Amino acid sequence: MLRVAIIGASGYTGVELARILCNHPEFELTVATSRQYAGKPLSDVFPNLLGKTDLICENLTIEELCEQADLFFAAVPHKTAMDLVPQLLRVGKKVVDLSADFRLRDVAVYEEWYQEHSSPEFIAEAAYGLPELYREQIKKARLVANPGCYPTSIVLGLAPLLQKGLIDPATIVVDSKSGTTGAGRSANVGTLFCEVHDGFKAYKVGGTHRHLPEIEQELSGVSGKQVTISFTPHLLPISRGILSTSYASLSADVTEDALRDLYLEMYKDEPFVRIVPAGTFPTTQHVRGSNFCDIGFAIDKRTNRIIVVSTIDNIVKGAAGQAVQNMNLICGLEETMGLEGAPFFP
Amino acid sequence: MLRVAIIGASGYTGVELARILCNHPEFELTVATSRQYAGKPLSDVFPNLLGKTDLICENLTIEELCEQADLFFAAVPHKTAMDLVPQLLRVGKKVVDLSADFRLRDVAVYEEWYQEHSSPEFIAEAAYGLPELYREQIKKARLVANPGCYPTSIVLGLAPLLQKGLIDPATIVVDSKSGTTGAGRSANVGTLFCEVHDGFKAYKVGGTHRHLPEIEQELSGVSGKQVTISFTPHLLPISRGILSTSYASLSADVTEDALRDLYLEMYKDEPFVRIVPAGTFPTTQHVRGSNFCDIGFAIDKRTNRIIVVSTIDNIVKGAAGQAVQNMNLICGLEETMGLEGAPFFP
Amino acid sequence: MLRVAIIGASGYTGVELARILCNHPEFELTVATSRQYAGKPLSDVFPNLLGKTDLICENLTIEELCEQADLFFAAVPHKTAMDLVPQLLRVGKKVVDLSADFRLRDVAVYEEWYQEHSSPEFIAEAAYGLPELYREQIKKARLVANPGCYPTSIVLGLAPLLQKGLIDPATIVVDSKSGTTGAGRSANVGTLFCEVHDGFKAYKVGGTHRHLPEIEQELSGVSGKQVTISFTPHLLPISRGILSTSYASLSADVTEDALRDLYLEMYKDEPFVRIVPAGTFPTTQHVRGSNFCDIGFAIDKRTNRIIVVSTIDNIVKGAAGQAVQNMNLICGLEETMGLEGAPFFP
Amino acid sequence: MLRVAIIGASGYTGVELARILCNHPEFELTVATSRQYAGKPLSDVFPNLLGKTDLICENLTIEELCEQADLFFAAVPHKTAMDLVPQLLRVGKKVVDLSADFRLRDVAVYEEWYQEHSSPEFIAEAAYGLPELYREQIKKARLVANPGCYPTSIVLGLAPLLQKGLIDPATIVVDSKSGTTGAGRSANVGTLFCEVHDGFKAYKVGGTHRHLPEIEQELSGVSGKQVTISFTPHLLPISRGILSTSYASLSADVTEDALRDLYLEMYKDEPFVRIVPAGTFPTTQHVRGSNFCDIGFAIDKRTNRIIVVSTIDNIVKGAAGQAVQNMNLICGLEETMGLEGAPFFP
Repeated sequence: MLRVAIIGASGYTGVELARILCNHPEFELTVATSRQYAGKPLSDVFPNLLGKTDLICENLTIEELCEQADLFFAAVPHKTAMDLVPQLLRVGKKVVDLSADFRLRDVAVYEEWYQEHSSPEFIAEAAYGLPELYREQIKKARLVANPGCYPTSIVLGLAPLLQKGLIDPATIVVDSKSGTTGAGRSANVGTLFCEVHDGFKAYKVGGTHRHLPEIEQELSGVSGKQVTISFTPHLLPISRGILSTSYASLSADVTEDALRDLYLEMYKDEPFVRIVPAGTFPTTQHVRGSNFCDIGFAIDKRTNRIIVVSTIDNIVKGAAGQAVQNMNLICGLEETMGLEGAPFFP
Repeated sequence: MLRVAIIGASGYTGVELARILCNHPEFELTVATSRQYAGKPLSDVFPNLLGKTDLICENLTIEELCEQADLFFAAVPHKTAMDLVPQLLRVGKKVVDLSADFRLRDVAVYEEWYQEHSSPEFIAEAAYGLPELYREQIKKARLVANPGCYPTSIVLGLAPLLQKGLIDPATIVVDSKSGTTGAGRSANVGTLFCEVHDGFKAYKVGGTHRHLPEIEQELSGVSGKQVTISFTPHLLPISRGILSTSYASLSADVTEDALRDLYLEMYKDEPFVRIVPAGTFPTTQHVRGSNFCDIGFAIDKRTNRIIVVSTIDNIVKGAAGQAVQNMNLICGLEETMGLEGAPFFP
Repeated sequence: MLRVAIIGASGYTGVELARILCNHPEFELTVATSRQYAGKPLSDVFPNLLGKTDLICENLTIEELCEQADLFFAAVPHKTAMDLVPQLLRVGKKVVDLSADFRLRDVAVYEEWYQEHSSPEFIAEAAYGLPELYREQIKKARLVANPGCYPTSIVLGLAPLLQKGLIDPATIVVDSKSGTTGAGRSANVGTLFCEVHDGFKAYKVGGTHRHLPEIEQELSGVSGKQVTISFTPHLLPISRGILSTSYASLSADVTEDALRDLYLEMYKDEPFVRIVPAGTFPTTQHVRGSNFCDIGFAIDKRTNRIIVVSTIDNIVKGAAGQAVQNMNLICGLEETMGLEGAPFFP
Repeated sequence: MLRVAIIGASGYTGVELARILCNHPEFELTVATSRQYAGKPLSDVFPNLLGKTDLICENLTIEELCEQADLFFAAVPHKTAMDLVPQLLRVGKKVVDLSADFRLRDVAVYEEWYQEHSSPEFIAEAAYGLPELYREQIKKARLVANPGCYPTSIVLGLAPLLQKGLIDPATIVVDSKSGTTGAGRSANVGTLFCEVHDGFKAYKVGGTHRHLPEIEQELSGVSGKQVTISFTPHLLPISRGILSTSYASLSADVTEDALRDLYLEMYKDEPFVRIVPAGTFPTTQHVRGSNFCDIGFAIDKRTNRIIVVSTIDNIVKGAAGQAVQNMNLICGLEETMGLEGAPFFP
């Protein structure tokens, strides 16, 4: 068994990592850190884990951490991650970092949207952890920058179109909706039950969400030219799930059938991408609790636009599940190991 | 007191009409029809009305109906409405029709999206019941076609921009999200609690929703030229509320402050339109149970697009509340009568 | 217009008071205090109030407060209230206190369940604000202790049975379920959306909830002897609503019909108590947003127990609505003024 | 691989069985029947299963069924089951029946609460599928009557107390709350999203729910004497989960610590029963998607009652999961096979 640590285990990504790792046949969760809950059993913090793990939350030095594990999931906020991750790498550990700190290849862009970067020298070697696009780099990496949840849903949905040059990148509009786990587990009036329940809102309207440069970096990468998009995130009164509705003008004369063939072909070997049947569209409920990304689309002939609907469970394929998928790849394990469960419905 | 009837009282629009009318100082609800529940007290069908009305649901002939009321809210499905409404008009009654049957001015468009129209001769005289645009016509009408819920939210959000020619109509993309009351009260697997709860989906993707021609008719009207848009509706796991996020390329060089002045000016005398403070965006929770339409917006300078967020309670301003607003106008009453309540939060 | 202040306007009780007062024909909301939001428009804190009030949240001294209002709703936590309320009374103001500080007639009981009482001399003159039991006292009071939400639902449900001696008080078991507004608006991990949504739990199991002595005081009052009950509160994933299911052994041989007559008779002049039709049971949805308490019951012949189901909107009849009802009584106004709206469904 | 069929695959129990069986290492799902969806891929009916199964829903004769599978999960309504199950048994198949038809050992009781029984001769040999009480019988059975969801939660919660004679059976009051999957997947106005969402209600008040004789049969069994209880089910606005709050008078002088030892001892070898830490209480969220039953309790010294809180996922431990647990036992497999996943939170 490979010894695995979760750094920052008390958030929603942390508990989901723990849930997956509890049943993983090759990874053994040996450390779970939490400053706030140090000394408490992890199953006191998250009673769903009762009987599945006896780990006590700890607040450890890097040295202590490194004695107890070889593989690390860093589930700490950005800024904290950029200080922590290099210390792990320097002593030979392998890291999947779930923060934004090593996702943006251009440090200037990072510093424009976040803050000064303390370890820019590690950016270049970080693999961007979207296996559907970067599988080979990930396999060889010691540091994987696990993608953001919005970017995962959007890039998987639009990549085939951009790669084949079928849409005009300047016309892309992405309207995304996220479950509330995406807002984290900090005590906050804005995410109290009574503020979110039975409601819906947009936020970061006008192109100001920090996932935007990451989305554009990846869309530009597959497209081969600079892509600038409109992106509006919204908050859904659900726990898990992101659904992105992407609009773009078609730049070629294609049929829905031809596009379907394209998507099926591009993702035919992908274990976690499902193209839904013609005439149907994905829903968050049908990927809940799984590592799947479901994709559907339609052409609006009246406006010559294609509309792509893509959905993931934001804390699985959008965070913890994709992180385990990446760690599997790093370790040369079967990519789907520990992630085989079918989605929960209802 | 004016005698008012609800035809089709057993749906969500029906119960909301009854709720509003129960407290209306000038309207007296004298008839509530329901084929399915005939003979049952309306408060058995909707126990929230217990003690507020003693009406028994009835299944009446037109003659019986006309003896008992002078003003009619037709809350029946399209097709049923186009047969019913003319019979009421011919005997001198006044009607607010909540179906789609008299909304589209071009009967050919109606017949393309719905079915053959049996009473096209009444279309011309129907006022489109959006008081913010058609107040004077409504006041003089005997038939008001109450707008659809999606169109209400979208047209109020985009009208100022189109009227002033500030956006390129060809670039309009509208991504709308509706609460589940919009799907009606028929028994249906797709709208069971367990199918909708904790989930989210798109439907009628690709420009196939029947509200589309209505939206385009009205946007074209304010714009002065033919407008064709992309429109995708989604289903929210909430009961009440529509939120529409509209995107368009700016065709003029304007600031957010200038736009705010424009919106404030255009809607300054409107009792039910609220422009939310700069830097904030409307949410469905904050209009719940009220006749308000809340509007906010931002400019995305990176893409030169404006994003408008507009929200209503779909069964109030999007149906029953706007219908009462229209009936008030028809009757020469204070437009806001019976609709003064502040929204419910939380 | 009578000048009214809300002290502690930034909680859920505060916003609901403001919502009701905005449309009250005789009360004018002239002050809303909030330490946290001082200087901010109340409609920034609660955007549902936009256009309904221009009040700015203030942090005032008692002197300033007393200059600007004559009637006070104290919506502050217990302990804060017992210091504040006497200062208002001493200068001749009238107060409805929504905290627990003046509800328990026995100061020893108060101090056992809460803490030392700084103003025990005001307890005796406080009327317990359940108009169905104490209407005449309330009319003459200058201080009303507005009941707790759980007690309101339970006492109204059981009073007829205890008053007539039809049940054995020693066998009473009350299982209550409350919406999450009852937990307040403080930032708290336990009431985050993702912790409450799609879940259900019991809390304060074993007779430790602070509403227990209040419930027992009132049940003892109507019963004429000391009543000790089992009471378990639960947290519902809804915003508004309490439903209490009460069980007791019948001590007399009565039929459901006879009990129905008893309930109908006892509450026949009560504007806010509804006995639901035979064979039906109340639901939280059907009182939502209203000041109603709905009551239904059944006899279980197999066990000779009666089961009473009673429900209220916890922030209306369980807090703000009942507070306005009490203030109406204090001021000699129509008891239902400002509270006539029918419940919202769905 | 053992060939397994689901008869009645289009309900919520059906889809959950399919989800579990998709990943079961020894069972291969070879048939899924559905009259309504015959000819449709199961993954069209339940898109969560896309890519996990290629099965087409079929409407088969008994002969065809028996050719294609050896183990059967009967997920059809009661009455249908009693006709179907004997036909499978007669040709040597093994059956876990999820209906009520073989749960009640006394056919007269069955016929009082349901209807005439067409196959009473099979009742005696049916093992009641609660492994915690009947493991040895289940192992030897060819027919297992899978327990109802309410009974599972209640019997596991109260069994230790009754077995040791620590409570007075005549005082038992059980207040249960169930998620809406328990109401099935038939199109029904009462279970539409807008009827259930943001609400809560009691139903079958007064001892009329059909699970009552089953609960009493099992409580009487562990108690050794006839037990008659009060039982009130409620409908929660959640998909999955039952939480039962049980009250009873203590008939012995015991401490919470002693009771904790008792529960821990009785369930120490049970893979799916978890006693939650002292001072905490179980919640539906923490068993969601798993086969666990979580139990907590407190003593109310004021009333000398014990309150037991027990919770399960009603379609896992309350239906599909327990059915697989039973089939594992029948087949001599590891009891936990396919059921090892940790609960989902949030």
